[in-house]
Amino acid sequence: MSTESWFIVSSEWHNEVVRACYLKRGFEAQETEGAVRLCESAARNGIRTHNAIKAFHLDDLFGSKVGGCIPGAPVTKLKSRFPASQVWNANKKLGPPVAYEAMATCIKLAAEYGVGIVSIDNAFHYLWGGAYVLDAADHGFIGYTNCTSALAEVVPYGGKIPALGTNPHSWAFPTQKAIGFPILVDWATSAVSMGRVQQLAREGRPLPDNVAVDSAGAITTDPKQAAGLLPFGGHKGYGLGLIDEIFAAMIGGYLPKLRGHPAAYGEKNSSCFHFMAIHPEALSSGEYVGGCGMEQNVQLVLEDILAGNEGARLPGAKAAAWRERCRSAGGLLFTESETNALNELARDGGVLELRGPLAPFNVSSGSPN
Amino acid sequence: MSTESWFIVSSEWHNEVVRACYLKRGFEAQETEGAVRLCESAARNGIRTHNAIKAFHLDDLFGSKVGGCIPGAPVTKLKSRFPASQVWNANKKLGPPVAYEAMATCIKLAAEYGVGIVSIDNAFHYLWGGAYVLDAADHGFIGYTNCTSALAEVVPYGGKIPALGTNPHSWAFPTQKAIGFPILVDWATSAVSMGRVQQLAREGRPLPDNVAVDSAGAITTDPKQAAGLLPFGGHKGYGLGLIDEIFAAMIGGYLPKLRGHPAAYGEKNSSCFHFMAIHPEALSSGEYVGGCGMEQNVQLVLEDILAGNEGARLPGAKAAAWRERCRSAGGLLFTESETNALNELARDGGVLELRGPLAPFNVSSGSPN
Repeated sequence: MSTESWFIVSSEWHNEVVRACYLKRGFEAQETEGAVRLCESAARNGIRTHNAIKAFHLDDLFGSKVGGCIPGAPVTKLKSRFPASQVWNANKKLGPPVAYEAMATCIKLAAEYGVGIVSIDNAFHYLWGGAYVLDAADHGFIGYTNCTSALAEVVPYGGKIPALGTNPHSWAFPTQKAIGFPILVDWATSAVSMGRVQQLAREGRPLPDNVAVDSAGAITTDPKQAAGLLPFGGHKGYGLGLIDEIFAAMIGGYLPKLRGHPAAYGEKNSSCFHFMAIHPEALSSGEYVGGCGMEQNVQLVLEDILAGNEGARLPGAKAAAWRERCRSAGGLLFTESETNALNELARDGGVLELRGPLAPFNVSSGSPN
Repeated sequence: MSTESWFIVSSEWHNEVVRACYLKRGFEAQETEGAVRLCESAARNGIRTHNAIKAFHLDDLFGSKVGGCIPGAPVTKLKSRFPASQVWNANKKLGPPVAYEAMATCIKLAAEYGVGIVSIDNAFHYLWGGAYVLDAADHGFIGYTNCTSALAEVVPYGGKIPALGTNPHSWAFPTQKAIGFPILVDWATSAVSMGRVQQLAREGRPLPDNVAVDSAGAITTDPKQAAGLLPFGGHKGYGLGLIDEIFAAMIGGYLPKLRGHPAAYGEKNSSCFHFMAIHPEALSSGEYVGGCGMEQNVQLVLEDILAGNEGARLPGAKAAAWRERCRSAGGLLFTESETNALNELARDGGVLELRGPLAPFNVSSGSPN
């Protein structure tokens, strides 16, 4: 539970700010709505690392300001001889609208075939993969996505030099009726994020052991010396990070220049996305104990796992609790420094800033103060 | 590199022993060949934890000797309205033949639809998931499998009591032409195996920190006090282990009794398997840099990751090196205690034991001594 002070920001104002800023940068109305939706979803699920503030920071550094993301780019849907699989060339279009549409397409394919996949070449950062797999779960499907990151921040297990992205994986399961919220397994394959390293450096605090290496490839606990992140869980997390790279390499990805390596072949410095949806009924034997249905069986199994394990919680519970806090607050929750950053975006987008005292929210009690 | 002494055992003799033992236990000829194939594959890939010796140990404890596995059981293939997905009831048939057939079916589905999945209810231990995904890669497909484990050995992150299996995940990619061998990402979601804990207990050596808890749920480094294993990588590995449980719960799994918990509903104490194959061309944008094909692009990306990272190796390299040692030796490699165990199986199955001095093999040089 965060000890920071939280303030209530209406989703209408937040979305107006995000919309105005994307439109000002030359993005079209329809693609902008996908990005607005993602930023709201990140805030509503308590994902502070990939909210609107991060979205525009990324767009400044790697996106429309430098040609990494092209406003109004068309998505080319390639012909495929495989009916349950599609491949799209995103032509560096804004990531979130492409990702939402890709997951919606996976859902349609899975509804027909049981499973469906969509792979995207020439993509630009989709920000938070959890949003898309939660969308699948909200529609009653299992969702999965992985992607490559443009920056090389992670050192291969046993190596010295960062050469992998933080390459996340996200899964969600439609367990709402079984346990009240969708299970969400969603994380980067680095032991910590570079943002966390920078925060500890600012605060003068040491890193945990075994999360970063210095420029010589030696493990360091000094955040100011950290030149690369280690994968979580040693060779196992390394394998998971590598999976994203192999999917991307098969799709069409080639990232050496953005990663600071010389490119042996031409220009291609964009990420790749991979999405999958599965219809739960396409997994079902129908043979649940005691005449249960699938949902009750999932509930029995998860309750059995938590029995006697009061300290454990299910992945996705934290995001669900944050959504409930936002619902109770009647708005999105941001810290003071985040509201300052949003006000800066508002000025940039020509939207009226938040004025007067902000409405505080007590996140511990889950209710407005 | 192991410092143990290794001896060459012909695959013909090994397979004859495994075959004779399964037939003696009442298994049919065809299903037995699937188990023989799995045991040879485990040995050929250096998987000592899930070879023939383990196979019969499991059959003794949980399998045909106690009704957990039914020789000659038919596999019921359920009708599905989803053309890229199948669900089978294995009726507790021997795991490896079911698993090989399931992956072969995924490959057929993926060849037609781009992706294919097969889910199995009422399954018995398939031993080593790596064998099935490598089979997919050998056919030019991406392979994936997960399964539940009958025993609860892993404590949910933040909990105290073991409630999850060691629930493995296995992926393989057909990277043979790109790098000489298929990438194989294959591991359990526990930080260590219970076999490793028992080995350290025998040797009087401590556990690493953060891999096991005692019966009160406190972290212990005393292997004799270990009552549960922790997931690898904290909440991330816990999430991965939970994924297997949710797939199984959706398929039809219900495991409380085998896990030492009371069963609220009837008898159902078997594992579930889930398999997937993807046709690599179903991922491809065709837009590789410099006029490359997919294989060359995968090679470029993987070489870029390893550049300057001499200490790192690609997942699957170790298994590939062991296959090469076996090829060079002209047989499978076992330690002296393993050959003793195989001789015991030979006696049990009525096969002539290995006689005379065993042929040693120097695993460091990769050549017969």
